[in-house]
Amino acid sequence: MNIDTIPFVAAPPAPRAGLPNARDMSHHLNSITKRRQANKLKELYKYAALPGMVPMAGGVPSPTIFPFETLSADILPYNHLPLDPPRVPKKQGLLEWLFSSSAPTTEKISIPKYAADPKDPMAIQLSTSLQYAAATGPPAFPIWLRKYVETVFKPAFADWDVLLDVGATDAMTKVCNMLLVEGDSVMVEEWTYPGAMNAYLPYDVNVVGLPMDNEGIIPADMDKVLSSWNEEKQGPRPRLLYTVPTGQNPTGATMLAERRKAVYDICSKYDVVIVEDEPYYCLFMDAYVPRDAKLSPMDKAQRDAEKLEGKKGNEAFLKSLPPSFLHFDTDGRVIRFDTFSKTSCPGSRLGWITSSPIFIERLTRIAECGTQAPSGFATALTLTMLNHWGWDGYVRWLRGIKANYRMKRDWMLDALADSFHLESDGSSINPLVLSTPLGRGYTAYARPDPASPERRWDEKRGVQSAHGAPLISFIPPSAGMFIFLGVHLNTHPEYRGPDDTRTLMDKLWRTLAKHHVLFAPGWAFDANGPHNIGGDGVGYFRLSFSIVTYEQTRESMEVFAKVLKQFLRA
Amino acid sequence: MNIDTIPFVAAPPAPRAGLPNARDMSHHLNSITKRRQANKLKELYKYAALPGMVPMAGGVPSPTIFPFETLSADILPYNHLPLDPPRVPKKQGLLEWLFSSSAPTTEKISIPKYAADPKDPMAIQLSTSLQYAAATGPPAFPIWLRKYVETVFKPAFADWDVLLDVGATDAMTKVCNMLLVEGDSVMVEEWTYPGAMNAYLPYDVNVVGLPMDNEGIIPADMDKVLSSWNEEKQGPRPRLLYTVPTGQNPTGATMLAERRKAVYDICSKYDVVIVEDEPYYCLFMDAYVPRDAKLSPMDKAQRDAEKLEGKKGNEAFLKSLPPSFLHFDTDGRVIRFDTFSKTSCPGSRLGWITSSPIFIERLTRIAECGTQAPSGFATALTLTMLNHWGWDGYVRWLRGIKANYRMKRDWMLDALADSFHLESDGSSINPLVLSTPLGRGYTAYARPDPASPERRWDEKRGVQSAHGAPLISFIPPSAGMFIFLGVHLNTHPEYRGPDDTRTLMDKLWRTLAKHHVLFAPGWAFDANGPHNIGGDGVGYFRLSFSIVTYEQTRESMEVFAKVLKQFLRA
Repeated sequence: MNIDTIPFVAAPPAPRAGLPNARDMSHHLNSITKRRQANKLKELYKYAALPGMVPMAGGVPSPTIFPFETLSADILPYNHLPLDPPRVPKKQGLLEWLFSSSAPTTEKISIPKYAADPKDPMAIQLSTSLQYAAATGPPAFPIWLRKYVETVFKPAFADWDVLLDVGATDAMTKVCNMLLVEGDSVMVEEWTYPGAMNAYLPYDVNVVGLPMDNEGIIPADMDKVLSSWNEEKQGPRPRLLYTVPTGQNPTGATMLAERRKAVYDICSKYDVVIVEDEPYYCLFMDAYVPRDAKLSPMDKAQRDAEKLEGKKGNEAFLKSLPPSFLHFDTDGRVIRFDTFSKTSCPGSRLGWITSSPIFIERLTRIAECGTQAPSGFATALTLTMLNHWGWDGYVRWLRGIKANYRMKRDWMLDALADSFHLESDGSSINPLVLSTPLGRGYTAYARPDPASPERRWDEKRGVQSAHGAPLISFIPPSAGMFIFLGVHLNTHPEYRGPDDTRTLMDKLWRTLAKHHVLFAPGWAFDANGPHNIGGDGVGYFRLSFSIVTYEQTRESMEVFAKVLKQFLRA
Repeated sequence: MNIDTIPFVAAPPAPRAGLPNARDMSHHLNSITKRRQANKLKELYKYAALPGMVPMAGGVPSPTIFPFETLSADILPYNHLPLDPPRVPKKQGLLEWLFSSSAPTTEKISIPKYAADPKDPMAIQLSTSLQYAAATGPPAFPIWLRKYVETVFKPAFADWDVLLDVGATDAMTKVCNMLLVEGDSVMVEEWTYPGAMNAYLPYDVNVVGLPMDNEGIIPADMDKVLSSWNEEKQGPRPRLLYTVPTGQNPTGATMLAERRKAVYDICSKYDVVIVEDEPYYCLFMDAYVPRDAKLSPMDKAQRDAEKLEGKKGNEAFLKSLPPSFLHFDTDGRVIRFDTFSKTSCPGSRLGWITSSPIFIERLTRIAECGTQAPSGFATALTLTMLNHWGWDGYVRWLRGIKANYRMKRDWMLDALADSFHLESDGSSINPLVLSTPLGRGYTAYARPDPASPERRWDEKRGVQSAHGAPLISFIPPSAGMFIFLGVHLNTHPEYRGPDDTRTLMDKLWRTLAKHHVLFAPGWAFDANGPHNIGGDGVGYFRLSFSIVTYEQTRESMEVFAKVLKQFLRA
């Protein structure tokens, strides 16, 4: 019987030579957080670890009566997903999507109740995983995550650490609990993730939407908000920025290095804490290239490198990822969220926070009296899978995931290109339509009606365009699972002004739903500030390409084009 | 591919005929909780459930790229633990405890990625379990839990419901988030669980310890606290009672029916919300009976009934459980916590809350932007195990767990009886020593020293006792995993008054730890109010009998007796 059930906590990472430690951020903690105390019985742990100690101090059940003796899983091999799936699925591939009962090759992992060497810090055994544990989780997990953070993010300060959580939503609630005071102001992207809103809005928070382009927050606009803040009229200046910098939800925008550095510098100047929520980080993909377009030599070299199996391909993938805010964080003001929801599965309810020691320590206190460690089923299975794949294997798995999302993004964009007439010439009124390092923006027009090819909308409405009035505009997303799509409502006969946007979009949404096409309405993501993306006369839909098949994508974009043509003509 | 990933929520239980609905408790919610909003996109769910709908609204990954294809576990059969283990383990049994590598018989459970009939609400499949889910968890789970609540607790109001959580600590934090305002007062047992303290103390809470006996909170004392409350001097009257009514941590006290009803009525009178935290509910056991004592005919009949396999034994077990506060709750003011930590394993991080609709609804909002549903690994494995065992099998499993804890309690109490001289005659100054329906209290004296049998402490100190000065007093616990044990420090030569208690107890604790005997210090559980259990001259230890072997128990109680004798003589 393993009686050594009081868990030990892995040593924090060795500070990186030459880097500063984080600055003291304790003035950002609210009063409830300042009052939290560490476990009174800490001294017990020291004694409990002594050999031969008879443990009658803790309140823990005996693992002998845990009903689970062994846990096993059949998992996909790390190279299950192809790095370069065909643009159009082959007949065989299509069938595979439709008939998932054709079982893929799998490999078995297994977790015993008692490991051969329980003293090995990397050992996973159910007698420990299914026991009470420190809020920091099984010691092997932080060891793994610290390697990941060090290799992938390269933080700019020395004494960072990680803390497991039960997903980014949990992390956000914990951060709100740690920092917010009723009446605070929080800065967010002008279009923002409603799941996070639900965490901060109950604090009677004043939401400050920041103007974006397809690289996310525009630094000059952010600086203006902060520099012109009037505390007498507006209350305390915002101390918190919540951002999804890679594949922003819903816009699909990604902040590249220069942009992140500029935003970071402003936050440092005004002492703002940055919550960097990165569920789609590993889903960062190359720019969308239309089927008939030619790649630049540089883009081609990068794509070719990423098709390679082995170390070289892995390195090309890691190099392609945008830098984390942590990489610029000399102050220790970044609180970064990562999650296994997109790279493994959402139901694992498993993610982690990376931040400075003071935030990690207070968040650990919050976890201790809340979630405690994540489920031992989730940590044991996920860690055993990671160990089974190994570091290089896991990186290869991430590349397969990325390739899969890119494939599905391209399915949907190709379908839009086939169902509409796309132009990338920027003739639209929509400022989304820009040419940037992340690809070009597009405006879509109706395809000529074969029955009356000469009938152009511009004749009817007087809009100057070779293709009639614009119907929709969008920028292909650079990460994530969404296309954020603006509908040009101002050509609708019932459109009289911005107040009609919601009504008309709801009407269109319902019409599409009746045709079995279900989008998310854009208003749900509105931070209700001034809009740089969209604005008067443009209503939005968020289209998710993550769970639709190739055929569903093609058919629903056809339906969308038909319904929209009908709707805007009516 | 299963595209129907937007979860549906199981219908709430049918209200029980003839019972009132819960009263409106919304005045107990704090301002943050009142501001919480339901998901703006609820309407989407209605449409998403329509057949043939192409789902591009949600932000969910495709289950085809979840790395887990099948999950399996070897679990113990429901009748693995004997109902009537021998008082002293047989040689064979002893070896089994020591060499856990002798693998027990197990049964296999397995969870596929896609169930044969995914429309069956009881079906468990990884494509759903590992997907994003409503905060209420997989619909099959509330169905199971509602049956349990209805059968075991029989709530006294009609419209109760359940909500999954990630363990009682999580539940407590959620309830604090829902109800507390900084400066509130919370009532607790005079000795109380520190894990819950960590959840409410940061709210700058005024902790009101309520006097206890071995049936827990004393109603008259509680009424006095509330009736004499002076809001001008003491702030708002307590609106919250936190209690562990079965096998209270640390005292082992259990409130039986009459006591719970009396406490409930006072809470109803003063509009107090009751948090009923019941981790040890199924571990409620019969009174401790010394090895040589004779059982009363009624006790013998109950014990014999509980030894029976099958329905009759199951019924005897369910009948033996104390009533929940829910059973008296005509108002809907009870928030009950149950957990799988002791009945399955703590690492599952799985439990549930039972309460009135308004609390369950607000707690669901809190869960939605925090933990969301518990880990799908935990819910899938636990539910599959429950379904594998079936209702009667699960009740039989609980009986085995109870018998196992009772066996270990008796090991430790028998060891105390052998290492000390026990008296149950109430000669001690400790009010714990009472004869009650839950068994008798004991005071322990040193066994006569064979070397100088005539040397009695009473001669030295003038205490009137046939056995010298009392060393320790305790009441055998009626549930849980702890013995709360008072040390009579007032015979220690360095004891000059209550201020010396902590110093002397810490000294004794360290001496014991050096002898490899590790107890939890009683001060960690002190609500810092007036004490009915203990008080001047008595210091406490909490001894856990849950993970020690028979031999460890025997040896460490011998060591304890020797060290204590030495210590109090010094």
